[in-house]
Amino acid sequence: MEDNQKMKIVGLVGSLRKDSFNKAIMREAVKSSPEYAEIEIVEIDFPLFNQDLENDMPEVVKNFKQKIEAADAVLIASPEYNYSVPGVLKNAIDWGSRPYGQSCFEGKPVGIMSAGVGMLGGARAQYHLRQSFVFLNMHPLNRPEVMVPNAADKIENGEVKDAETKEKISELVKALVAKAKESKTSKS
Amino acid sequence: MEDNQKMKIVGLVGSLRKDSFNKAIMREAVKSSPEYAEIEIVEIDFPLFNQDLENDMPEVVKNFKQKIEAADAVLIASPEYNYSVPGVLKNAIDWGSRPYGQSCFEGKPVGIMSAGVGMLGGARAQYHLRQSFVFLNMHPLNRPEVMVPNAADKIENGEVKDAETKEKISELVKALVAKAKESKTSKS
Amino acid sequence: MEDNQKMKIVGLVGSLRKDSFNKAIMREAVKSSPEYAEIEIVEIDFPLFNQDLENDMPEVVKNFKQKIEAADAVLIASPEYNYSVPGVLKNAIDWGSRPYGQSCFEGKPVGIMSAGVGMLGGARAQYHLRQSFVFLNMHPLNRPEVMVPNAADKIENGEVKDAETKEKISELVKALVAKAKESKTSKS
Amino acid sequence: MEDNQKMKIVGLVGSLRKDSFNKAIMREAVKSSPEYAEIEIVEIDFPLFNQDLENDMPEVVKNFKQKIEAADAVLIASPEYNYSVPGVLKNAIDWGSRPYGQSCFEGKPVGIMSAGVGMLGGARAQYHLRQSFVFLNMHPLNRPEVMVPNAADKIENGEVKDAETKEKISELVKALVAKAKESKTSKS
Repeated sequence: MEDNQKMKIVGLVGSLRKDSFNKAIMREAVKSSPEYAEIEIVEIDFPLFNQDLENDMPEVVKNFKQKIEAADAVLIASPEYNYSVPGVLKNAIDWGSRPYGQSCFEGKPVGIMSAGVGMLGGARAQYHLRQSFVFLNMHPLNRPEVMVPNAADKIENGEVKDAETKEKISELVKALVAKAKESKTSKS
Repeated sequence: MEDNQKMKIVGLVGSLRKDSFNKAIMREAVKSSPEYAEIEIVEIDFPLFNQDLENDMPEVVKNFKQKIEAADAVLIASPEYNYSVPGVLKNAIDWGSRPYGQSCFEGKPVGIMSAGVGMLGGARAQYHLRQSFVFLNMHPLNRPEVMVPNAADKIENGEVKDAETKEKISELVKALVAKAKESKTSKS
Repeated sequence: MEDNQKMKIVGLVGSLRKDSFNKAIMREAVKSSPEYAEIEIVEIDFPLFNQDLENDMPEVVKNFKQKIEAADAVLIASPEYNYSVPGVLKNAIDWGSRPYGQSCFEGKPVGIMSAGVGMLGGARAQYHLRQSFVFLNMHPLNRPEVMVPNAADKIENGEVKDAETKEKISELVKALVAKAKESKTSKS
Repeated sequence: MEDNQKMKIVGLVGSLRKDSFNKAIMREAVKSSPEYAEIEIVEIDFPLFNQDLENDMPEVVKNFKQKIEAADAVLIASPEYNYSVPGVLKNAIDWGSRPYGQSCFEGKPVGIMSAGVGMLGGARAQYHLRQSFVFLNMHPLNRPEVMVPNAADKIENGEVKDAETKEKISELVKALVAKAKESKTSKS
């Protein structure tokens, strides 16, 4: 592998809200890394998972799975709903993990960011996600942990304005790219 | 309140699969309690939550919220997907909790059951749900904890066959009814 | 029960550090409630739990268990160590819960506060504690959740200076006293 | 690094009970791997952590930290107490992680096993430990997850008798050794 090869990363956002803070931090991630990462944001507005359909998945879900399979890593930006992972995001994870033995997430490096209006910036959702990653055999970064509390003060018109937040997002993407390269090398 | 008043309980099932084990344990709960509880199973096959729509929710979601508001307690039967709560169920919780200040779950007693083919019987999903209940200000039972591992051995043709499992489900419903009565009395 | 009866509360602090922020918030709780609560702070500097000794516990542990048994509620103030409950506090809980069937915590209402120098103010320790409360059959308050982030800015010379923090601690004690009274009434 | 170099692993047991099931599974790990791993079981019967002493730690704690620093990986065998990590083990982790910036755990690969008399075999303790590993920047294996439920049926006179349990422990040690080698190589 050449050292200057761009890592392909799929970006997933846990909120469907048009002006979502988490869409904003994901766009910031895309902007922060044009030279070494190609982050494609993939929509996850799917029907609800139903195991009866797992051998005949909706086309949008098949596309989603193919994109993740082809990616070197996954980057998640998600709010916290009710002290846990939004149903929106969990539903995409549930589809992607099925059928048994055909998960698109197997062995992928993964980074997490979360933004919220509250004090904890989505922390509780992140630890629940991490528990899912054990089953999924994904490899989350330990650091940096990017939680953006009081997001309404840091994001304006869909753009991250806070310098510290920009810096942390940039660090996260760098660390994820490094992990993805390492993972790719160890397999090649 | 008369002592023989039936408690109204809404039953939510976290799996859409036609032959779901968790549908089976929910039906068992209904059967076990005809004299003191009226359990209505409410469908949760909703579109994904989108905060932009929370002031103009789909009709099915409005009905769902009204039924829970009118209920004395909530009973959940859910599988564990990827070591956490299924997106299906979490999505219903996310809708029900919104808009801010208008959650249908506020102050409700809640019981949880889970069935799964694995060894842990859905335990991990239950503890994640319990964390959501803190935010939702719901009042979960501590005991009994009803986890049904190796569900394929205990449920046949959609019916719970295992005597111990039946007994535990019956205990759970009794405990939930008692908590619901206590809660209703303290408010009256 | 007379309505003006003081509730007896045992206070446990998860840090042994002399100038602990969590000792400070516990003292604030004591000060905030002289008329309706009698909070006794009980030391938990015990030897490590060893099940071989559970039928012949050290005297300090026996005293601890008796005090909790005689109390109407438990109030915990604890830091978060390594994203979880300090060993110091968990060790006291482990002793108190044993031998099987002789837990001193059974059925007790419990409130939690946490102070820390970080951004999350001990939140992660609180959710781990809540999971232990399920097994212990304790009854934690859902609200208010008292997390004191950036504690070094809010506590000076062992005294809470921040008005908002004082207010929240006072609310927590009031809510705990109310729950303890309710629990006592339902048993009497 | 030569390929036949033995990995040095420190084994930590979360129970002080003489006939502990978790001591038994740790001894089984030692036996299963004489050719490729040197597992040294290190005692953790320490005084309780007190931050005031972190710059002047007890000698036993200093030794513990040095052994972990010199190790290629850590292997933990622990019961679950009150649905979480035993105070005994958490206390050792709290000492080892301090003072700030001098943690002995930084970057270490880690494997977890748990045995218990209950149905879940210590699962809940394992997920709490995993949350601590995020802060500690340790690298846990995702698989295999070794939980030994109904341990009294599988362990006799301090020896693991159950073939499936032996096999799983052996797999865990192999996976941990592989991860330790990979980690060592990437640093060299």
